[in-house]
Amino acid sequence: MPPSPHIEQHFTAGEAVRDIVIGMSDGLTVPFALAAGLTGAVSSTHLIVTAGLAEISAGSIAMGLGGYLAARSDAEHYASEGRREEEEIGTVPDVEAQEVAEIFQSYGLTTEESASVVASLRRRPQHWVDFMMRFELGLEKPEPGRALRSALTIAGAYVVGGMIPLSAYLVFSDAHRALLVSVAVTLAALGVFGGIKGRFTGAPVGRSAFQTVVIGGLAAAAAFGIARLIS
Amino acid sequence: MPPSPHIEQHFTAGEAVRDIVIGMSDGLTVPFALAAGLTGAVSSTHLIVTAGLAEISAGSIAMGLGGYLAARSDAEHYASEGRREEEEIGTVPDVEAQEVAEIFQSYGLTTEESASVVASLRRRPQHWVDFMMRFELGLEKPEPGRALRSALTIAGAYVVGGMIPLSAYLVFSDAHRALLVSVAVTLAALGVFGGIKGRFTGAPVGRSAFQTVVIGGLAAAAAFGIARLIS
Repeated sequence: MPPSPHIEQHFTAGEAVRDIVIGMSDGLTVPFALAAGLTGAVSSTHLIVTAGLAEISAGSIAMGLGGYLAARSDAEHYASEGRREEEEIGTVPDVEAQEVAEIFQSYGLTTEESASVVASLRRRPQHWVDFMMRFELGLEKPEPGRALRSALTIAGAYVVGGMIPLSAYLVFSDAHRALLVSVAVTLAALGVFGGIKGRFTGAPVGRSAFQTVVIGGLAAAAAFGIARLIS
Repeated sequence: MPPSPHIEQHFTAGEAVRDIVIGMSDGLTVPFALAAGLTGAVSSTHLIVTAGLAEISAGSIAMGLGGYLAARSDAEHYASEGRREEEEIGTVPDVEAQEVAEIFQSYGLTTEESASVVASLRRRPQHWVDFMMRFELGLEKPEPGRALRSALTIAGAYVVGGMIPLSAYLVFSDAHRALLVSVAVTLAALGVFGGIKGRFTGAPVGRSAFQTVVIGGLAAAAAFGIARLIS
């Protein structure tokens, strides 16, 4: 029998796509909203560009390092839980065997029906550890080297996303004209990004584009309103 | 046999804790770095407070809505994959039964050893669907009502986190004095937050506190440097 082709239909976004989505979602939204908000309070594009670049550098570093540490801590969590399972399988195999039976019971199987699986796992301790990691704890084995790649991808996507709204303020010296161009360019970019994101995550493309535009628009409108209110 | 007490040692952070960590990590870092960066470029605390509040409103809305949509799309993904598995179990049960056998093969079990599990699942289609969701696709059933709760928790944590560095600029009218106080207060808050986060995620408390302080400090230093460079 050939490998079942239908498995590929369960497509979910790869790690790199997920990292780009994380970085670009915030990169397109927060610097955009900050620049729009400041346009409600000051008229110097130089100051808005300064604040925008400060935000982009801060945001990309914070998100990139955050992603790095999250990936590292996932890997450490997996390793430490793995050692614990290994130890338990060595010291209290009967308790662990009972846990395997309980996992199957939650899917309606009697202890007799799962007995052959339990017996087989008991003969293969390393497979047993892997089985408990996935089926008791729901943990996936992390890919090596992922932490650094993840950090650079998230930070890079944040910078690229953030430069789109800011570019209008670099081109036009009148802040209000720059705001109009920035709004138009960024809402269009959010729509395209939302649509592409929908393709990768399996959400309907039109709805994903619409939602992404609404988030960016609401965040920018709120920032604009608050900055205008207090200035 | 009583429920095995050792399971509780596999403690992982609850959803609410995870959302607070997501919101507060960025909330403590990005507005802090932005305010520090602007202090390198302007001397008016009023403008820094304006930019800071604009950032906090933009960031909390963007992260909160982002969290809402992520939780909603997880729930929809789960439901649509569930319908697909249900349909496949109805139309091509032999292919699905073969997939169950393959899952067990990856843990070293022969087709004979897993046969009784496969036979039992074939008699209980609903359990079979649940089994495939967890063990083939690695998907967890999402909690209902989670999306809204998640959005409000993330946004609230972002606002609370962001007001800590900004509070110094509200109290002191001299931007450079405000910066010194903001740095001291925020690095202390990052350390406490990092330590608490470590307790919940199972990382060593001291290392978690240190890493969190370093991320915030680096992001703020980079923002300060870039803003000073271009102003």
